Amino acid sequence: MGNFDKLKENVLKANKALVSYGLVIFTWGNASEIDREKGVVAIKPSGVSYDEMSVEDIVVTDLEGNTVEGKLKPSSDLKTHLELYKRFPKIGGVVHTHSTFATAWAQAGREVVCSGTTHADYFYGPVPVTEALTEKDTKDYERMSGAVIAETFEKENRDYEATPAVLLKGHAPFTWGKDAIRAAENAAVLEEVCKTAFITREILGHSPEIEKHIADKHYFRKHGSNAYYGQKKEK
Amino acid sequence: MGNFDKLKENVLKANKALVSYGLVIFTWGNASEIDREKGVVAIKPSGVSYDEMSVEDIVVTDLEGNTVEGKLKPSSDLKTHLELYKRFPKIGGVVHTHSTFATAWAQAGREVVCSGTTHADYFYGPVPVTEALTEKDTKDYERMSGAVIAETFEKENRDYEATPAVLLKGHAPFTWGKDAIRAAENAAVLEEVCKTAFITREILGHSPEIEKHIADKHYFRKHGSNAYYGQKKEK
Amino acid sequence: MGNFDKLKENVLKANKALVSYGLVIFTWGNASEIDREKGVVAIKPSGVSYDEMSVEDIVVTDLEGNTVEGKLKPSSDLKTHLELYKRFPKIGGVVHTHSTFATAWAQAGREVVCSGTTHADYFYGPVPVTEALTEKDTKDYERMSGAVIAETFEKENRDYEATPAVLLKGHAPFTWGKDAIRAAENAAVLEEVCKTAFITREILGHSPEIEKHIADKHYFRKHGSNAYYGQKKEK
Amino acid sequence: MGNFDKLKENVLKANKALVSYGLVIFTWGNASEIDREKGVVAIKPSGVSYDEMSVEDIVVTDLEGNTVEGKLKPSSDLKTHLELYKRFPKIGGVVHTHSTFATAWAQAGREVVCSGTTHADYFYGPVPVTEALTEKDTKDYERMSGAVIAETFEKENRDYEATPAVLLKGHAPFTWGKDAIRAAENAAVLEEVCKTAFITREILGHSPEIEKHIADKHYFRKHGSNAYYGQKKEK
Repeated sequence: MGNFDKLKENVLKANKALVSYGLVIFTWGNASEIDREKGVVAIKPSGVSYDEMSVEDIVVTDLEGNTVEGKLKPSSDLKTHLELYKRFPKIGGVVHTHSTFATAWAQAGREVVCSGTTHADYFYGPVPVTEALTEKDTKDYERMSGAVIAETFEKENRDYEATPAVLLKGHAPFTWGKDAIRAAENAAVLEEVCKTAFITREILGHSPEIEKHIADKHYFRKHGSNAYYGQKKEK
Repeated sequence: MGNFDKLKENVLKANKALVSYGLVIFTWGNASEIDREKGVVAIKPSGVSYDEMSVEDIVVTDLEGNTVEGKLKPSSDLKTHLELYKRFPKIGGVVHTHSTFATAWAQAGREVVCSGTTHADYFYGPVPVTEALTEKDTKDYERMSGAVIAETFEKENRDYEATPAVLLKGHAPFTWGKDAIRAAENAAVLEEVCKTAFITREILGHSPEIEKHIADKHYFRKHGSNAYYGQKKEK
Repeated sequence: MGNFDKLKENVLKANKALVSYGLVIFTWGNASEIDREKGVVAIKPSGVSYDEMSVEDIVVTDLEGNTVEGKLKPSSDLKTHLELYKRFPKIGGVVHTHSTFATAWAQAGREVVCSGTTHADYFYGPVPVTEALTEKDTKDYERMSGAVIAETFEKENRDYEATPAVLLKGHAPFTWGKDAIRAAENAAVLEEVCKTAFITREILGHSPEIEKHIADKHYFRKHGSNAYYGQKKEK
Repeated sequence: MGNFDKLKENVLKANKALVSYGLVIFTWGNASEIDREKGVVAIKPSGVSYDEMSVEDIVVTDLEGNTVEGKLKPSSDLKTHLELYKRFPKIGGVVHTHSTFATAWAQAGREVVCSGTTHADYFYGPVPVTEALTEKDTKDYERMSGAVIAETFEKENRDYEATPAVLLKGHAPFTWGKDAIRAAENAAVLEEVCKTAFITREILGHSPEIEKHIADKHYFRKHGSNAYYGQKKEK
């Protein structure tokens, strides 16, 4: 038994969940999880299909991206994940997909405002869209992708724990959570929210905002110290 | 054998039907059924996934929401169901989902007019949308959600038996029926009607209304004393 | 062995194909086939689900709709089928569904013009939409539904064999073919054509017509005496 | 064992992949692969369903379209494939489908501009749309379909290896690659790119172009001598 077996199993499970949630085709997505005590991150290997992936294929690196365990190359998006773990110290898992509707909103460069309680149950306020990466950013592209996401939250003082999702402009979504499987769940929720937001916008010609007192009611009945949804306090 | 076994089995079956109809992901929906003679309602437990749910997990409460049988917390939407059972005395089952197209119409705050015979076969007249809940309503949010639905029918003298569906503004649909499984079927019909209404509206730029004599013909060949659809009188 | 076993098996197979093609939910569609020599039609029973349907459930009637074999009530749309068999003497099978995109075009009351070769491979010219049934028509509703379809072809001298599909305004599609299974295939093709036509129209803001020489090329490489598609002459 | 067994197996696998990728119904698509040393092409037989197709059914022809091995007629689109192999000397496989969203863009006669990194990961620059075939072209229709595709790339000096996909106006997509299975993968990517481009365009009202430095970064991290995506260099 290796030191990182549980971490690698979590990451394998989250990556396979992306397939069962219908969020990825081919090798278009990746999930990771951090063990902050040991200072390591486990992540999907690059360009390996989900069907063939086993726990041995999961790559473990340190926070600089040096491989600690595993024979394969880590996901080419590793440095985006590492930057997010550095900038968002309370998250435990990160997921990136190219899911259809979230990707379309990212390509359109439009934030997804809160149009209903499905959104409010999971994301507090709009799901923001980043600025485009500059030409200079492409020199250290993957790390800068994480940096531009972190800046999107920092510059407007958004709470990354209350809104665990972002649209990377011209690219696709990133989501996060307490661990890899929660990040994957948030990716599935985001896709559904983006699909419903799209249909809503088609019907009205614009994206309506739900009343703040209703959004607050839904967010706080599921999150925080007064939550009463579910069998016990969660998230 | 408990007193409520049949009721609980019906509710389990209806909740699982929501999954097979493609209306829910995660724990985003709930079905209940009332036994008016015994004065109890059986409902899905809160935050429990459909796959893992067994008949023992179904919660039985009295009409005030006090648990009569079951170890888990009931759905956080229980009071909406209870309010509907009080206000709509002839219904036997209630279903709530966040199905994609019905939710989009609810977010858009638009009623779904009768544009075709698929709609007319199940719903007499438009599927209405409620007013938004006020800030004061959020104090007793789940009960007031039921109240605002009931008012939507009462204020315009709509027949809740002839139109067993509503869109809760900014939230999602509720449907009902003679029992839980009929309510679940109406939820599936509503989603298909909302999808077709959406595409129709995109083609024309507005939502057309079918001729009243055709809508009536369809509704009454399936419902009421002169119905001739199916092998025997139903619904 | 009964006299109509082969006919009933064909009809059972075609009805079940509607499910596997994704064209129907619940009991929302029906397929029939005629034996013109024996003067009988076999059709789906009314309100029976496709999963539970067996060959014994298929109902055989004469051309006036009197049951010749079978214990169940025939489809409530039987008289529409019978009218089509009378008015279109060269067809052998009829199918009715409420498939999503074809139904939306029917609700919009718009014909589907030929925008591409997928359409031209199966349907010569536009798929027409009927007039709405009048209030008087609702007295003999199912037969008049067939009559208004036949008139749509007769009044403009359309060839019902070359265009084996129609949209019944405010209702849904009917298709036909040499036998029940061909009629079911045409129902699946129509749904795909209607979906692609919808997306095309959204992109352009209108429905473009393909060049006639390309449409003709495609139609005639699959149909008629000079066809060269497939392993042998078909359809 | 025949001389062409491996080639035929590749082609069978690629044709069946079109079904598992959800790109074809009935017999609406075909994949082929060329063995340039032996001067032969293996292709799907005409009008045969994918389920029933076995390796013996795959037809092998020379570059003029004369059958070298196989009892069935080759795909009616054979000459389009042959023309592409002649005009694009570095490709090894060709695929044609009528996948829904790519066909809609072809029917709309609009190229698909690069609106995001999913597109840029696979296709350099826009996926072009051809001119319509002229009436004269229909005399040698299938060959001219290949010719008009080749001209679309030649006249604007596009690199057919960097953009292995095209929309044949009023018809549907063709894709290609190093072999048949890569061509099939490109067909699946194209469909997803066309779907996302459609939704993006609906949100904005026009098709946005991604910044060139981002598109270049994505294309070249997967393709060419400096690629670093995946476990080893691949196309």
